[in-house]
Amino acid sequence: MFPFVVLAHDPASRARRGALTTPHGPIETPVFMDVGTRASVTNCAPADLATIGTQVVLGNTYHLMLRPGPEVFRKLGGIHTFMGWPGPVLTDSGGFQIFSLPEHRTVTEEGARFKGYTDQQMHLLSPERSIEVQTAIGSDIMMVLDECVDSTSDEPTMHAAMDRTHRWALRSLAARKNTQQALFAIVQGGVVPSLRQQSAAFLTEHPFDGFAIGGLAVGDTRKEREDVTALSAELLPAGRPRYLMGVGTPPDLLRAILAGVDMFDCILPTSLAWQGIAFTSTGRVRLTRSANVLREDTLDAACACSTCVTFSRAYLHHLFKCREPLGPRLVTLHNLHYYHELMAHSRRAIEAGAFAAFAKEQLSRIDRHEHGLPC
Amino acid sequence: MFPFVVLAHDPASRARRGALTTPHGPIETPVFMDVGTRASVTNCAPADLATIGTQVVLGNTYHLMLRPGPEVFRKLGGIHTFMGWPGPVLTDSGGFQIFSLPEHRTVTEEGARFKGYTDQQMHLLSPERSIEVQTAIGSDIMMVLDECVDSTSDEPTMHAAMDRTHRWALRSLAARKNTQQALFAIVQGGVVPSLRQQSAAFLTEHPFDGFAIGGLAVGDTRKEREDVTALSAELLPAGRPRYLMGVGTPPDLLRAILAGVDMFDCILPTSLAWQGIAFTSTGRVRLTRSANVLREDTLDAACACSTCVTFSRAYLHHLFKCREPLGPRLVTLHNLHYYHELMAHSRRAIEAGAFAAFAKEQLSRIDRHEHGLPC
Repeated sequence: MFPFVVLAHDPASRARRGALTTPHGPIETPVFMDVGTRASVTNCAPADLATIGTQVVLGNTYHLMLRPGPEVFRKLGGIHTFMGWPGPVLTDSGGFQIFSLPEHRTVTEEGARFKGYTDQQMHLLSPERSIEVQTAIGSDIMMVLDECVDSTSDEPTMHAAMDRTHRWALRSLAARKNTQQALFAIVQGGVVPSLRQQSAAFLTEHPFDGFAIGGLAVGDTRKEREDVTALSAELLPAGRPRYLMGVGTPPDLLRAILAGVDMFDCILPTSLAWQGIAFTSTGRVRLTRSANVLREDTLDAACACSTCVTFSRAYLHHLFKCREPLGPRLVTLHNLHYYHELMAHSRRAIEAGAFAAFAKEQLSRIDRHEHGLPC
Repeated sequence: MFPFVVLAHDPASRARRGALTTPHGPIETPVFMDVGTRASVTNCAPADLATIGTQVVLGNTYHLMLRPGPEVFRKLGGIHTFMGWPGPVLTDSGGFQIFSLPEHRTVTEEGARFKGYTDQQMHLLSPERSIEVQTAIGSDIMMVLDECVDSTSDEPTMHAAMDRTHRWALRSLAARKNTQQALFAIVQGGVVPSLRQQSAAFLTEHPFDGFAIGGLAVGDTRKEREDVTALSAELLPAGRPRYLMGVGTPPDLLRAILAGVDMFDCILPTSLAWQGIAFTSTGRVRLTRSANVLREDTLDAACACSTCVTFSRAYLHHLFKCREPLGPRLVTLHNLHYYHELMAHSRRAIEAGAFAAFAKEQLSRIDRHEHGLPC
């Protein structure tokens, strides 16, 4: 069992400041984890990540089992050595990716069979196989394989998927040999409170190192997502980390921290960077807009990242207009730095017993800017 | 007139070690200049360039006049501030780019009229306009507008283009107001020795700060290029820098240094990086080849660049197979570092009076590796 300690509680919310110890160093929570699906955070080397405050890189079992494949990790010594990242790594199980491929897969009690996009061969991703591959990858935190269903499915479908996710979670636990790798279970149940309750009650009976809240990244309304997040977080044990998968915007993160969530990941800061959209202290900035052509000021006057201390908005605009790859790279570094700073401020605010007020101020500021005129 | 001093001569060749003083610092020659056509060396920030040994960035007047346009440079204070690069910048005049656009341009004595790819409007690039734009860009070294023709053209066509290049060079010299920006003329004349002789004789009669050898980047045989380079370099004054435009491979550079050339630029190290091809001390490496899947060794055991001290060939191979943009970035940094190291070694060898032997050893080593089995 990985040591997880809660260092401070916010008096006016369920927010908490914690630390999870892993073989590759501590993870200070709340934490945002950088998505590095194929063992690379888009266009960032590990040395870049070190400068922007990254604590954890998140790889994906589905993609990594196809390329480079578990054999490469076994022979070369795991993902840390492979990608040159000395810090903690979490691997998602591949359940969500299988769910996103409806055309070339069949899901049975055994697992998911799918056609690999790299080799056109059929592959089996079962709970045991996912653990086997994650063991080869050598991540610090492994996720159980879950069965994801569309959140608009009827309740019997959601119930059946939840039950299977529970059976698969226990098979994953039985398959895990290396206790130097933590294993997190995933609470499912869509937006149905009674299912979420059943799922949390079942999974928390078993010795998982942490618990994730799954199935909320897409499709639901913000209200539904927030309610389910708050309910699920409340049902999870205080002594284990809570991870909200695939969510979200800065306000999503602040609200989830208020509800007691510790860990996050999301593609937004990297995917929006490729479109020239930056998160700043004065709201989102679309760098492609011609209003930036002659702007000598930086992206965010409140930001100390290498992009903001070096380049004007005019230059960043130019890079995007010319489709120079340096543009997305500079904004990726900025956006990830923005997320990590938001988490660092949140941690300090919880330590100071002032997180609820901090979150309220941030949320109202973001709301004001996002409804103002963006530039 | 920019101070250019020759610090050492190689006793067994025409190679020389020099230094050109610019308002943004000295340029130690022989030098390879990084191509940054649109005010960005592909996917490299200025801080990256500082770590790999870059001395000069090369912008392009044709591209920069269309985007961001001279007005942006005038208002924001020139290319150094715009792109955050504090060192010397050379701008090509745009002549070669106009030549490469045969469908949408007409060339007359006045200059070249062409349809801009950013605005679909007609633009005039005349010798005076090129200088005006380069003045706005604020480069340390400007190039005269030249008329490039296909090297397979008949001699009268080449002769006419050369004569027009001479007239345009004098118009460029007359148009240059800011003597804080050097102006280099371009020797033309295709692969016809008598034309090259006429061109060098004409241009060296005028107070240009340096002389380039143009029209040799494409189309000719290696023998023709080498003979013309050697002839042209011999005809140029000893007290002025000599710049061989758009050339070439490491052996091309070594042979041109032997002939007395001081400055180079080429897209090869960056463009090959995007295809996963790296220059190494044991020949070119194609990282996409499956022979690299399990190779734990680095790209080049003899290289100390950040790519080689951090990553295995297996990981670089993986990045290219996954089309991760980090792959081209890491190989771009390596390839440019390789070129800059080759120049640094050449400078030291000339200082030691041992360049001819150094070049011979390098050329035979490269030849041996490139005809061996690449991996």
